[in-house]
Amino acid sequence: MARITLNRPSAGNSLSMDLVACLRELFAGLAPREDVKVIVISGAGGRIFSAGHDLNEFHGNEDLEFLEQDFAGITALMQEVMAQPQIVIAKVEGVATAAGCELVAACDIALASTVSRFGVPGVNIGFWCHTPQVPLSRQVGRKEAMLMLATGKLYPAEHALRIGLVNSLHEPDQLDQAVEDLVTVIASKSAAVIRRGKRSFNRQNGLSVADAYRVVREEAMENIVAPEANEGIAAFLEKRDPVW
Amino acid sequence: MARITLNRPSAGNSLSMDLVACLRELFAGLAPREDVKVIVISGAGGRIFSAGHDLNEFHGNEDLEFLEQDFAGITALMQEVMAQPQIVIAKVEGVATAAGCELVAACDIALASTVSRFGVPGVNIGFWCHTPQVPLSRQVGRKEAMLMLATGKLYPAEHALRIGLVNSLHEPDQLDQAVEDLVTVIASKSAAVIRRGKRSFNRQNGLSVADAYRVVREEAMENIVAPEANEGIAAFLEKRDPVW
Amino acid sequence: MARITLNRPSAGNSLSMDLVACLRELFAGLAPREDVKVIVISGAGGRIFSAGHDLNEFHGNEDLEFLEQDFAGITALMQEVMAQPQIVIAKVEGVATAAGCELVAACDIALASTVSRFGVPGVNIGFWCHTPQVPLSRQVGRKEAMLMLATGKLYPAEHALRIGLVNSLHEPDQLDQAVEDLVTVIASKSAAVIRRGKRSFNRQNGLSVADAYRVVREEAMENIVAPEANEGIAAFLEKRDPVW
Repeated sequence: MARITLNRPSAGNSLSMDLVACLRELFAGLAPREDVKVIVISGAGGRIFSAGHDLNEFHGNEDLEFLEQDFAGITALMQEVMAQPQIVIAKVEGVATAAGCELVAACDIALASTVSRFGVPGVNIGFWCHTPQVPLSRQVGRKEAMLMLATGKLYPAEHALRIGLVNSLHEPDQLDQAVEDLVTVIASKSAAVIRRGKRSFNRQNGLSVADAYRVVREEAMENIVAPEANEGIAAFLEKRDPVW
Repeated sequence: MARITLNRPSAGNSLSMDLVACLRELFAGLAPREDVKVIVISGAGGRIFSAGHDLNEFHGNEDLEFLEQDFAGITALMQEVMAQPQIVIAKVEGVATAAGCELVAACDIALASTVSRFGVPGVNIGFWCHTPQVPLSRQVGRKEAMLMLATGKLYPAEHALRIGLVNSLHEPDQLDQAVEDLVTVIASKSAAVIRRGKRSFNRQNGLSVADAYRVVREEAMENIVAPEANEGIAAFLEKRDPVW
Repeated sequence: MARITLNRPSAGNSLSMDLVACLRELFAGLAPREDVKVIVISGAGGRIFSAGHDLNEFHGNEDLEFLEQDFAGITALMQEVMAQPQIVIAKVEGVATAAGCELVAACDIALASTVSRFGVPGVNIGFWCHTPQVPLSRQVGRKEAMLMLATGKLYPAEHALRIGLVNSLHEPDQLDQAVEDLVTVIASKSAAVIRRGKRSFNRQNGLSVADAYRVVREEAMENIVAPEANEGIAAFLEKRDPVW
């Protein structure tokens, strides 16, 4: 398991150009690591997951090339999180807004504290949350995304759970344990199968049902003749633990 | 803010050919209005939002051209509501059925009374709710849409909230205030940003994640160099209210 | 109404190659039956809906052609359930795992016991639930599908309801009655309209909103001039029961 911490607590763990570059390097470095099955991403300091872009980098900035690169970097990060060969879990202790909320939506799984809050408040500062709406609307649907986008309000954890933005809520002092428990469960699986699974999921995602089934049949055939399936099925039938 | 009232209470606020034409004109007239940020649509009389098509226009009607135009009009209306440059809010006090339920599903946001009810009962009269299923199934998913479509039953407000057909429920005597509060929040934003946002949302909606991100990067670049973002971000950093 | 029972209780009602072939024949045989409006599928014995593939057929099997045919058969079954001209209801009394859970997700409607449980545990035996993720992720969204797929855990009925994998929960001794009540409601409709409706739903499903509306306008025009609509609308306006 690997941990990635958004570590700019004095700046709301905001996703500055440098931090995004650093995150992308970290994810890229972890991608080939066969021993890593799970990556947990969280915000330093406990009160803020991430406040999104660093507005200081936007204000008065007329360097169009910088701005282009900034959006290119952050949208690449989100797509790389989705494509990451490992399972990426967001641990959300506090506030996740704008591109911070986008990152939660982009992760495979999200566990959140009961005191966490979520919003896409770009509209409040004259800058609609254009990129956050991509994973957000795909996760929570059009109506709930539009409500969040058009009001710019912060919504409580219970709201995020109800609309499906996070998988589960935990008391603040139990969130760490809940994430550890989840990591332990996933880490008990075969690393090769997790990688196959994530790839298989991504390949079928967004396709028509017929095309999706064509793709997963290929993946299933590759998987069923792999040593992990052989060992796993044997262990199951012999009522013993598999040895990956 | 603009209000549109479905005003045929003696006929269940049903969407006759004339009313649909009238609604389309109203929406088209409001579209270029830069000062209008929100449109609230509701049913006159308080007991019925809309009962859908006017069945009197269908019964015994063998004028195929009329029927073609009727479906053309109503499906154009729904798509125009989605494409409307403003945020369109459905205020649902009572019953919303068939194309009335479709209209709720087509709106950007829907607030409903706790005594409201929802259904797609075409199957009861031998005429499946073909067009309502388009926004309905995209909003609530296949299983919940099929249950409503195949049973033709009226479902209570709580059901509609649980499956995501409406954003929130309010006591009948508090629905007006809840809608006003929401309108006030959205109306405090920059009109230009609301328009950009709605367009940006619609452009990315339904695309693959990669295509969606390409589109929203364009929108983000246009928005970040616009005067609204400049003012909004400055105001935020200077801890003052923005002046749009 | 027709009932199909997965009848291998001693083998967890698992979907062996033979059972899948048998199910496909049953569905194909029912498809042209104009008198059948609803098909209820359940597991024999009451404790297990279906445990998915029969692992005994996988273990040590190096017959690639058999494995290819096995996946081809099971993925064809799921798509045929979706395309079936009748409404297919899953009655889930107990455990539904792997391709058993996939079958629940593929059905049009699912009613489940409060003691039912759901999982896609392939990852536990080194064989990711590749094919189940197709209908599962389309029904419950990416985050909830990934949680189930990556943990391989069994989730309780309440979880399945919350994420939208089933339509409703019922006490074990009331599930039969709930299914009968639902069947009675759907069986009171015109068979021709149910067939039109299911076809119409499937044709528009997965299309862009604009394409979907084009398709359903065709379907609506065909339906509105059909005798069932004529009779149904007449009965409604005359305040009498329709005679299909």
